[in-house]
Amino acid sequence: MTSKRIYRAALLVIGDEILSGRTHDKNIAQIASWLQVQGIRLTEVRVVADDMDAIAEAVNALRTKYDYLFTTGGIGPTHDDITVDAVAQALGVPVVLHPEAHAILADYYKDKEGGLTEARLRMARAPEGSGLIPNAMSGAPGIRHGNIYMMAGVPSITAQMLAALTGTLEGGAPLLSETVGGWIKESEVADLLRQTEKAHPDCQIGSYPFFREGRTGANFVVRSTEADKLAACMDALCAGLAARGFAFTRGGI
Amino acid sequence: MTSKRIYRAALLVIGDEILSGRTHDKNIAQIASWLQVQGIRLTEVRVVADDMDAIAEAVNALRTKYDYLFTTGGIGPTHDDITVDAVAQALGVPVVLHPEAHAILADYYKDKEGGLTEARLRMARAPEGSGLIPNAMSGAPGIRHGNIYMMAGVPSITAQMLAALTGTLEGGAPLLSETVGGWIKESEVADLLRQTEKAHPDCQIGSYPFFREGRTGANFVVRSTEADKLAACMDALCAGLAARGFAFTRGGI
Repeated sequence: MTSKRIYRAALLVIGDEILSGRTHDKNIAQIASWLQVQGIRLTEVRVVADDMDAIAEAVNALRTKYDYLFTTGGIGPTHDDITVDAVAQALGVPVVLHPEAHAILADYYKDKEGGLTEARLRMARAPEGSGLIPNAMSGAPGIRHGNIYMMAGVPSITAQMLAALTGTLEGGAPLLSETVGGWIKESEVADLLRQTEKAHPDCQIGSYPFFREGRTGANFVVRSTEADKLAACMDALCAGLAARGFAFTRGGI
Repeated sequence: MTSKRIYRAALLVIGDEILSGRTHDKNIAQIASWLQVQGIRLTEVRVVADDMDAIAEAVNALRTKYDYLFTTGGIGPTHDDITVDAVAQALGVPVVLHPEAHAILADYYKDKEGGLTEARLRMARAPEGSGLIPNAMSGAPGIRHGNIYMMAGVPSITAQMLAALTGTLEGGAPLLSETVGGWIKESEVADLLRQTEKAHPDCQIGSYPFFREGRTGANFVVRSTEADKLAACMDALCAGLAARGFAFTRGGI
């Protein structure tokens, strides 16, 4: 039996480079997909600049509103990495040198050029009371404080940290989904979508139009936490598409 | 002479498909880059689900805090397109059928199969008091109400709407940037970055590490609204890198 409680998470993406358009964020989709598998719904994302007050304000708004708050970015060794300080400010706790993180970094850098410099030691700083999130890739760990998970900005490092967290967070029933798509204008099936969703409680239908190869198409995604209801809703939707003479592909196009 | 006032914008991305990880958002980077050219800084982004209250709450938080609010998604013909209703709720105004949008859609669909159906007519609904944002691609216009700009979720349509808005928004001096990069561990130059930024007021230096081809590198981005200060800061940074024996490439790697 799976829990009926819905667990919800927020993601706070920290970094001027996303807001300037210089870097295309990859962490939203990565963390969203990972959370789905953990049975946790990503419900809100915010992106803010490398600014103490902006980060602290968002941290307090999101950590109190959702079961989990993930942050990405701002935990490296340079002057613009201020996530730890901003989270500590938000929580009203001091920043301390985390002994275990210190040991991990000392070991990681012992054979590397320059050794454990003052800048690298910054990555062992954490809000008082924190635990660590292992990082198999580059030494410096992520940081956990209560329901806040501070992760790297570099997507490949975040992926390692997510792998380390897999299965450790309490979640509910995963949101299942199935897709059907075709060279269909969504405006031609708007009524069908609305009626089908209404006839199938506990299911949501999303409509995602696109333009490709000069043609209009759409994918329709049915979502539910219950596999049998999901299947019934998808069958009804496909039957409706067929009755209206549309060609479609289960799995989407 | 350029204005010293800094104009700031927020972006609200609306859509379950982003929060589920199904769709990788492209509008954040696209709108961020466009705003840079308009002399407007994207200062905050939020992503929320297709949920009336979540959208309305974010709209009111962001429209009052920033000079401009852009939204993407939820202005199509289907039941899950509720941006217009949510913005109207946030503003406390009714939703009306916009006569000009109605005329545009009637013309666009007059030769198309099915004609202007009830579902398609949904795309002529707008919060009372709205203006339109032209959409050369697919008929249905974007909607403007005060400082709120409601745009499409499909990135290619949003691009058309941005093109129509180019040069029409009041902005300040654009934020200029220059990049230098190399196979440099950011932790080895953290002090240099901090000192250089401190010595050059009105400039910010961002450090963006990456892992490629099994190697560690970083790009350093200097930003300023003043070209001469930007150049001086970049020269100082490059001189510092050279003095420390690092190879680097102006423009970034």
